[in-house]
Amino acid sequence: MTATIIDGKAVAARIREELTAQVAAMKAEHGIVPGLATVLVGENPASHSYVSMKRKACAQTGIDSFPNELPADATQDEVEALVRRLNDDPKVHGILVQLPLPGHLNEERILSLVSLHKDVDGFHPVNIGRLAMKGREPLFIPCTPHGAIVLLEEAGAKFDGANAVVLGRSNIVGLPAALLLIHRNATVTVCHSRTKDLPGVCRQADILIAAVGRAEMVK
Amino acid sequence: MTATIIDGKAVAARIREELTAQVAAMKAEHGIVPGLATVLVGENPASHSYVSMKRKACAQTGIDSFPNELPADATQDEVEALVRRLNDDPKVHGILVQLPLPGHLNEERILSLVSLHKDVDGFHPVNIGRLAMKGREPLFIPCTPHGAIVLLEEAGAKFDGANAVVLGRSNIVGLPAALLLIHRNATVTVCHSRTKDLPGVCRQADILIAAVGRAEMVK
Repeated sequence: MTATIIDGKAVAARIREELTAQVAAMKAEHGIVPGLATVLVGENPASHSYVSMKRKACAQTGIDSFPNELPADATQDEVEALVRRLNDDPKVHGILVQLPLPGHLNEERILSLVSLHKDVDGFHPVNIGRLAMKGREPLFIPCTPHGAIVLLEEAGAKFDGANAVVLGRSNIVGLPAALLLIHRNATVTVCHSRTKDLPGVCRQADILIAAVGRAEMVK
Repeated sequence: MTATIIDGKAVAARIREELTAQVAAMKAEHGIVPGLATVLVGENPASHSYVSMKRKACAQTGIDSFPNELPADATQDEVEALVRRLNDDPKVHGILVQLPLPGHLNEERILSLVSLHKDVDGFHPVNIGRLAMKGREPLFIPCTPHGAIVLLEEAGAKFDGANAVVLGRSNIVGLPAALLLIHRNATVTVCHSRTKDLPGVCRQADILIAAVGRAEMVK
């Protein structure tokens, strides 16, 4: 079997081009410009970099972006008040609360507060529940696993009956990736740090999604 | 490896005994008798039998049960009105909508209508979402997979790092069973009718939960 490297940048460029046309059409036909609000708490450099990439993608496609930054010591009430304000703002159609939040904040309460219809990250428990259940459709799908599926489709992967191995079980990547693959009729194995013979399991995979934050976990 | 047959009836008898004492204590200390409402639509004999078993278990443990039966041609509005009435009834602490519902009814809407705090089947999308997510707790866990885990625990099964295979991916058994096993640190493989070499996958299982409605699917 020879390896194929998927040209992710080319796929992204094509998707952004399609999106730009759709955004322009929405503005021309309905006078509506989609708006994305970002919520960033604290000084995590990776989070700042992610948010800045998301805002850049908005600018490229004609989407309005509304950045919101709070200091690392923001209180639960302050973050919740901000989310409520964004829920009520008609110019804001999507809300991204950048994770991880500082440890003193209750992430579950904050994510559950995001309006189901603005939960573009798909992290509201109702969206995860719908993603998990057969015959239900989430309003939004978490972007990282969704992107992985799109790239696999681009590479011509066959999901039906394939052995798919997902390494990691995080709420934001591993778990939703496994759910997406189950719904595509793959036989899905969820592995993690406790898995026995990880290399052996991975070798049996037709599709392998690595979603652990540790380099060289599989040797 | 020798087989051990778990005495499920003995485990059930012990749990019912504990429950009976807890129900009596709640009545003595707080004057509250737990109440379970069942909703049965149509004439499915298996459904009637399940509901009757649940009511019998209530009677044995001192729980009030409130049976509700609607004809097979009940409308969506009629079923929804019944669920709303039960949500508002302070004597009803749990609501079981017996599945499957007749095909003309919108199951998703009816299950989403059950108050989160009375969703004793755990089928509300918020409860499934919380069950799926790491670090979240559902208010209720679907009973069949939960019972399977309890019986495995009784049999002394070790979950941590075990290879667990779940055969079936239904919303009510297979999917929640897989989620419960993932949270217990098992390496979980979800199999189904499209799985290649099902017997081979099953042979590698330390724990196998069969939850498909077809006899002899694994040969």
